[in-house]
Amino acid sequence: MDNRGESSSEWHDPRGRGFRDRASVADVLALIDRRVSELESETLPLGEAYGRILAEPAVAGSPVPPFDRAAMDGYAVRGEETFGASSYNPIAFRCAGEAFPGRRCRVPVIPGDVVAIATGAALPAGADAVVKHEATQRTGDVVLVTEPTPPGRHVGRAGEDITAGTLILPRSRMLRPQDVGVLSAVGAARVAVVRRPRVTVLVTGDELLPAGSPAVGDRIPDMNGVMLAALIHRDGGTPAVVGPLPDDRDRLERALLQAVENADAVLVSGGSSTGPEDYAPGLVRACGELAVHGVALRPASPSGFGFIRGKPVVLLPGNPVSCLCAYDFFAGRAIRRLGGRRPDLPYRAISLPLARKLVSVVGRLDYARVRVVDSQVEPLAISGASILSSTTRADGFVLVPSELEGYAAGSMVSVWLYDE
Amino acid sequence: MDNRGESSSEWHDPRGRGFRDRASVADVLALIDRRVSELESETLPLGEAYGRILAEPAVAGSPVPPFDRAAMDGYAVRGEETFGASSYNPIAFRCAGEAFPGRRCRVPVIPGDVVAIATGAALPAGADAVVKHEATQRTGDVVLVTEPTPPGRHVGRAGEDITAGTLILPRSRMLRPQDVGVLSAVGAARVAVVRRPRVTVLVTGDELLPAGSPAVGDRIPDMNGVMLAALIHRDGGTPAVVGPLPDDRDRLERALLQAVENADAVLVSGGSSTGPEDYAPGLVRACGELAVHGVALRPASPSGFGFIRGKPVVLLPGNPVSCLCAYDFFAGRAIRRLGGRRPDLPYRAISLPLARKLVSVVGRLDYARVRVVDSQVEPLAISGASILSSTTRADGFVLVPSELEGYAAGSMVSVWLYDE
Repeated sequence: MDNRGESSSEWHDPRGRGFRDRASVADVLALIDRRVSELESETLPLGEAYGRILAEPAVAGSPVPPFDRAAMDGYAVRGEETFGASSYNPIAFRCAGEAFPGRRCRVPVIPGDVVAIATGAALPAGADAVVKHEATQRTGDVVLVTEPTPPGRHVGRAGEDITAGTLILPRSRMLRPQDVGVLSAVGAARVAVVRRPRVTVLVTGDELLPAGSPAVGDRIPDMNGVMLAALIHRDGGTPAVVGPLPDDRDRLERALLQAVENADAVLVSGGSSTGPEDYAPGLVRACGELAVHGVALRPASPSGFGFIRGKPVVLLPGNPVSCLCAYDFFAGRAIRRLGGRRPDLPYRAISLPLARKLVSVVGRLDYARVRVVDSQVEPLAISGASILSSTTRADGFVLVPSELEGYAAGSMVSVWLYDE
Repeated sequence: MDNRGESSSEWHDPRGRGFRDRASVADVLALIDRRVSELESETLPLGEAYGRILAEPAVAGSPVPPFDRAAMDGYAVRGEETFGASSYNPIAFRCAGEAFPGRRCRVPVIPGDVVAIATGAALPAGADAVVKHEATQRTGDVVLVTEPTPPGRHVGRAGEDITAGTLILPRSRMLRPQDVGVLSAVGAARVAVVRRPRVTVLVTGDELLPAGSPAVGDRIPDMNGVMLAALIHRDGGTPAVVGPLPDDRDRLERALLQAVENADAVLVSGGSSTGPEDYAPGLVRACGELAVHGVALRPASPSGFGFIRGKPVVLLPGNPVSCLCAYDFFAGRAIRRLGGRRPDLPYRAISLPLARKLVSVVGRLDYARVRVVDSQVEPLAISGASILSSTTRADGFVLVPSELEGYAAGSMVSVWLYDE
C-alpha cells in the first residue's frame, strides 16, 4: 500500500496514558524521507553563497581564463624563433613593448621581436610562448634568449581551467570557499541556492522561565529553546523561538497555527507525551495529521511527528537530553531535507573499542553518551534524560540497536562525535 | 636567541627579482604561533553564543536541578510506607493533592497520604520517592500502590545534573548547542566569548573586475576576494573586502594603513612576489616589519607575512590556488589564533593508499590536489596554480614534505578533506 505513511503508520494511543505501541526509528526516518522534500530556491549575491546548497547545476557560461595568458614573468615570443638558443648561443630579439595583467600590449609580436610580459597578462598577437625571465638577458631594447621555448610553453591557454559549457558544480553541492571563487570566474554574480528553512520553536511548560534566568521557586530556566535554535542554525535553518508558553491548550493551539502559517517547519518542545497536560499530540491530530506518536528510542520515546497543512510538526520531549536526541533524529532530518542537505546525522563517526560493558534495553534504540579516553570508549555512568551535562561532558554517543542488550567490553563500536 | 622572529627570520630578497631564500613552512607556522595571540573577550546574550569560543571557564552559579523533582509521572510518597506493597497486597493511600511542573503542591505529604505528581514537578514536603503511574490504581481519592518504592526512587535530586561551583565548560571551548542549554540552566544569560577577528582583504590587480563580472577585454573577474571572505567566515572572522584596487603603490599604501587601523588582521591578495609591480612586500617593510617573504611551499611560494603596528599582514599570491593554499597555512592560522580557535588546518585528514605515483619537487612542501575514488587516492593531473577548478574537482589535498620527491603508488598518505 502506498499510503502507509498517511494512515496505518499512526502509532499513537489516543485512549489513555502510555504508548501502546512505539514506532521504530527506521520507520520514522522512512516517513520523513518520503514526505519531506526540498524547498524552492532563492537567488543570492555570490558574496552570501558560501555554505549554501546549490539549487541547480552550475554550468560555465564563459571559459576560464578567457584568453591565452602568460604563466610566468618573462618575454612573449614566437616560439619557433627560439629553437637552438642556449647560453653559448643566445638569440637576440628586439623588445617591442610591455604587457601587464589588465594592460594588454597592442603591438603584435612580429618576427625578431619579443614583448616583456608579466604573469597573468594576455599574450600579445603573434606570440605563442613565454620565455621565462631567468632564461633571458636584457640590455636596452635588446633581449638575449638563452633557452629554446617551444610554442605553448609557459602559456595558460584560454579555457584551460574551465571550458565554456562545462558542468562546474553539481546540484545540491554545499558551496566551498573555492566554489564561490570559481563561480566568480565564470561571471556568475548571483547564484540559485535552496532557501533556508524557517523553523519556529514553541517552548512549552508552566515551570519554565526565559533562558538564562535564575531559578525562582519551583520554576527553572528553559534550556531547550536556545539549544534548539543553535541546532537549527547548524542544520542550515533560520530559527525563531516562541515562549516559554504556559501549558494551556487554547494558547498552544493559537501559537501552533500561527507558527504553521509563518514557518516551513514547527518544533514543539515539551508536552509531547501522554499525560493530562500534554496537549501538543492531540492538537496536531486535531489540526492536521499525527503520523507518529511514541518512538522506540531511548531517551526520546515520547516524541511525535506530524503535519499541519503539509508542514512538518515535530513534538520533542521536554527533558533536554531527549529533546536533543529527538531533534537530531527527526526534527533535524526534516530540516536538513527541507534545506537540501544530506539528511543523515550531521556528526562524524569513528570506530573504537569499548573500555567497559555498555548495557542497554531490548526493544529501543539506545542513545548512550560516551567519552573517548586513550582511544577507548567509556560509557558515561549517568544516563538520565534530564542530565543535559552528560552531553557536554561526553565526546559523543553510541547507538545500541533495539535488538541488542548492549555491547561487551572490547566490542568495536561507532562513536558519533559531537564536535567536528 | 629569543628575537629570532624579529630580525634573523627575514627571508626576503630586497635586491631584485626572485627569492634568494625561502622560509620553511614550519618556521612560518612557528613565527605565527609566537607572535599572534588571542583577542580580548566580548559578552554576548546566550542566544548568540553557539559556535563561539568561551573566553573564560564556565562555573555553575547554581545547582541543576535547583530542587528535588519527580523523574516519572505517578505519586509522591513517603517511600518506607510502600514497603511490602505488591499486586496481591496493594497498600491504600489518600490522594491529598496534585503537583505539576511550575505548580508546586503546597500540602505536605503526611503519613498515609500521597500527591499525584507529573515528571519535572518539585517533590512536595514530606515525600521522598515517586511511585510510577503503572504501579498504582486510583478510585476517587484512594490510590492503591502495588510496588514497593524505596526513598529516592524516581526522584531527580537537587544538583544531580550539576552541583553549584562545578566547572561545566573549560576556557576555549567551541560552544555546542547543548553547551548553550547547560549555560541557560545555570542562569548564565550572557556569556564571555573571544571577540571575532575583523579581517580586511585588499584585492589588488589592474586586470581585476568585481567578483562575478563578465570578462571584458583582458580584464577578468576577481576570484580571491569572495573566496577569502568565505574562508575568513569559516575560521570565525568577520571579513571586509576592499577592491579590486589598481596596481598603484600610493593607493595601496593608503588602503593598507587604513585597513590596519580598522581591522585585527589584513590580507593582501595579489602583488605578493618580486616583480616590478609587486608593491605589497615593500610597503609592509616600509610601514612595519616584513618577517617572511618567500616560502618553500608549492604553489604558494610568493607569500609573505609581516606586522604593521603589531597587527598581522599576510601577503597572498594572486593565483587562486596559491591564494587558497597560503590562506589556509598562514592567514587562516593567524585568524584562528586571534579568534581563540585551534590553529591547525581546519580539515579532517584520512589515511588512504595512493592509486598512482605522486610526483613532487624536493625543497618545497607540495600541496597536491587529489580525488578519493574507491578508497584510493588519485592525484589530479592538472596542478597549475591558476587552475582553481582543481580545488573544486578535488576531494582534498595531500602534503608532500619538502625532503621527498613524491610518493610511490600504494603508499599510505593523509588526505585533508575539503568538505566536512
